[in-house]
Amino acid sequence: MSDDIVLTYRIETPGSVEGLARKIASDQSTGTFVPLPGETPELKARVAARVVDVRMLEPVAEPAFGRTHDDLAEPRSFNCGEADIAFPMEAVGTDLAALMTIAIGGTFSIKGFSGIRVTGLTLPDAFGRAWPGPQFGIEGSKRLTGVSGRPIVGTIVKPALGLRPPESAAMVRELVEAGVDFIKDDEKLMSPAYSPLAERVKAIMPVVLDHEQRTGKKVMVAFGITATDPDEMMRNHDLVLAAGGNAAVVNINSIGMGAMAFLRRRSGLVLHAHRNGWDILTRHPSLGLDFSVYQTFWRLLGVDQFQINGIAAKYWEPDASFLRSYHALRRPLFRPDDRPLPVVGSGQWGGQAPATYAAVRSTDLLYLCGGGVVSHPMGPAAGVRAVRQAWEAAVAGIDLAAHAADHPELAASLEAFGGADAKGA
Amino acid sequence: MSDDIVLTYRIETPGSVEGLARKIASDQSTGTFVPLPGETPELKARVAARVVDVRMLEPVAEPAFGRTHDDLAEPRSFNCGEADIAFPMEAVGTDLAALMTIAIGGTFSIKGFSGIRVTGLTLPDAFGRAWPGPQFGIEGSKRLTGVSGRPIVGTIVKPALGLRPPESAAMVRELVEAGVDFIKDDEKLMSPAYSPLAERVKAIMPVVLDHEQRTGKKVMVAFGITATDPDEMMRNHDLVLAAGGNAAVVNINSIGMGAMAFLRRRSGLVLHAHRNGWDILTRHPSLGLDFSVYQTFWRLLGVDQFQINGIAAKYWEPDASFLRSYHALRRPLFRPDDRPLPVVGSGQWGGQAPATYAAVRSTDLLYLCGGGVVSHPMGPAAGVRAVRQAWEAAVAGIDLAAHAADHPELAASLEAFGGADAKGA
Repeated sequence: MSDDIVLTYRIETPGSVEGLARKIASDQSTGTFVPLPGETPELKARVAARVVDVRMLEPVAEPAFGRTHDDLAEPRSFNCGEADIAFPMEAVGTDLAALMTIAIGGTFSIKGFSGIRVTGLTLPDAFGRAWPGPQFGIEGSKRLTGVSGRPIVGTIVKPALGLRPPESAAMVRELVEAGVDFIKDDEKLMSPAYSPLAERVKAIMPVVLDHEQRTGKKVMVAFGITATDPDEMMRNHDLVLAAGGNAAVVNINSIGMGAMAFLRRRSGLVLHAHRNGWDILTRHPSLGLDFSVYQTFWRLLGVDQFQINGIAAKYWEPDASFLRSYHALRRPLFRPDDRPLPVVGSGQWGGQAPATYAAVRSTDLLYLCGGGVVSHPMGPAAGVRAVRQAWEAAVAGIDLAAHAADHPELAASLEAFGGADAKGA
Repeated sequence: MSDDIVLTYRIETPGSVEGLARKIASDQSTGTFVPLPGETPELKARVAARVVDVRMLEPVAEPAFGRTHDDLAEPRSFNCGEADIAFPMEAVGTDLAALMTIAIGGTFSIKGFSGIRVTGLTLPDAFGRAWPGPQFGIEGSKRLTGVSGRPIVGTIVKPALGLRPPESAAMVRELVEAGVDFIKDDEKLMSPAYSPLAERVKAIMPVVLDHEQRTGKKVMVAFGITATDPDEMMRNHDLVLAAGGNAAVVNINSIGMGAMAFLRRRSGLVLHAHRNGWDILTRHPSLGLDFSVYQTFWRLLGVDQFQINGIAAKYWEPDASFLRSYHALRRPLFRPDDRPLPVVGSGQWGGQAPATYAAVRSTDLLYLCGGGVVSHPMGPAAGVRAVRQAWEAAVAGIDLAAHAADHPELAASLEAFGGADAKGA
């Protein structure tokens, strides 16, 4: 087994779960729709995938793919099960695009499913040797920001789009003065006509370096270097590095695995991954793939900081799903330093700190607040202090409202942002 | 309007379709979850997306995302509508990763949908100037194979995985002798230990060139050059080209847009795109994105031959969906030569030729038969002849069974593969 790649598929079908599991194993290795002259027993033994286990689950009444497709319109019940399928290393190798093609991509084309989701992935050690993993990860992020014993507090230059470089730089000046550890471009900001990356870097980095000169604290600023053309992305990378920057936002799904591999091999920056588009792959709980599977690819490729959501996110993702993502990032794949720093964000402002800490029992995270910092009623500096106060309280086990009694910035946050979610947290 | 990028979203929600359309426009340009100091009217006018039109559709009783999520568990009816949203070019630019991030990727994270699908995309002319499109496309594919007036007949070396290079070469020898125009590696075959690409090329290309020498016909062989690392993929590309090859299979979703841009810029090969994994994005008819939207990106990036399915495919895709994909590929984006050659495949053997031709009224396609050729009862050469006979009949409007009366290879195909589908076709 140690030389096999094992995938787990949650299969839903009006027909036989086990039959479809066997079909995945056959279609995704040697098979086609008719018997073949060259498909010898010896060849099959060498490269054929095989079903290792099938565990039946409760049937469901509605098909995950909906009732539009003819074969799903009539049945009143759909069988469910989880199947483990082993793919021999000899057939796949350690190439991640090969793995994605053979064990994941193609399976979704097979007829007969009413739902299919990839829920598990176990890789042989050879993958750990073949791929670089994070260059900076958790320890590098802490070292470069000088933060330990508490979350790295980050924020996003907002509005997401529309500020010209001097306006962005003015906002950054206010945020570095405010004591924030990390600042990023919104993931939607790359290099538009009104804010070319080169000009933005030129406007912002002197602010960061000047602040470092005066205070000794170098704020990590992650610039949006994403570009479709990997050569252009590398030029973006290089100009951030040359200007003294140390981080970049990368929209991993938009560029794809190849460009990520290309970048990582040449990178001198902390690569902060935004997974926009991931929701397409995962939002329906019976379709697509689990984050635990998805993140394996990007960690091997070398993501240093991985955006996930947070408790009471502004996005659709439920808390339980966020926590599964967090714990997936915390599990070493092959060694402890292949763990990226979890980036907890989306509608965060500090109010979620107690619930977050209670669930994760760690401060090894980047706590990313957009509007929660920049729209604080007493200004961004107070926003940063409020977030740090909330985390101090969370770690010490002090109720936020009690802590707010002698922490006016936190009190103002609770007043401004604290709905039922936060009180409950 | 001509300077805007316009996306159409099919929105399904227990709440307000128009409200969610406005939320997409706001979240995906300037907005966050609280008002922002810098979000001035001038800035909004410059970069803000705006809802141009909302057309209500019939409500549905079951949410596309299923009933697992709390906000979708109770409602008995879900509102549906199509919304057109315009994004200013100044905010997005012509970068495809930026477009994907801003107008597609991020929208799927927004709370409140019970379903969301991107169904339309209209781009300003600047995109046509910014991207190369196909290098060879339809005309190049015809020229290099010497085929006109009928489909290019292609096949796949099977079994998909497991053959060693000399075994693959023996199969290729049989297929070129059989008169096939095009041969490809199965998309799952890249460069595994038992068949490294370099050895496969070395074994196969002499067979192709020898056949060309003797007959004047150069069969197009598309080798699986996909690799995660773009540098490695280029080395793969180069060794195919150096050996006299002229085509490559590229698993576009597995490598991603960046690696495709990288490859296209340097490519001397016909790039045959396999879209494995696309089904994840489209199989649920109310989630993900339409092929018409998806293919726009890959055509601009430079796909020369685009695999879609076919009539009565072995995969899940219904005929109507295949035909929409075909017609999407046939529509010029900005100019006639930005159209890749449609590759009609999946369970094809010739029996579907009449129905295919009746629907598409064109022979500008690569008709790709895997098992349908290599498993023909009289051997692959007969399989190729049977496919060409089927297309002759289809174009001439002759019934397949009638044509089979004096075409024994077609008769044998009908006997071996012709189920109810084919008879009906």
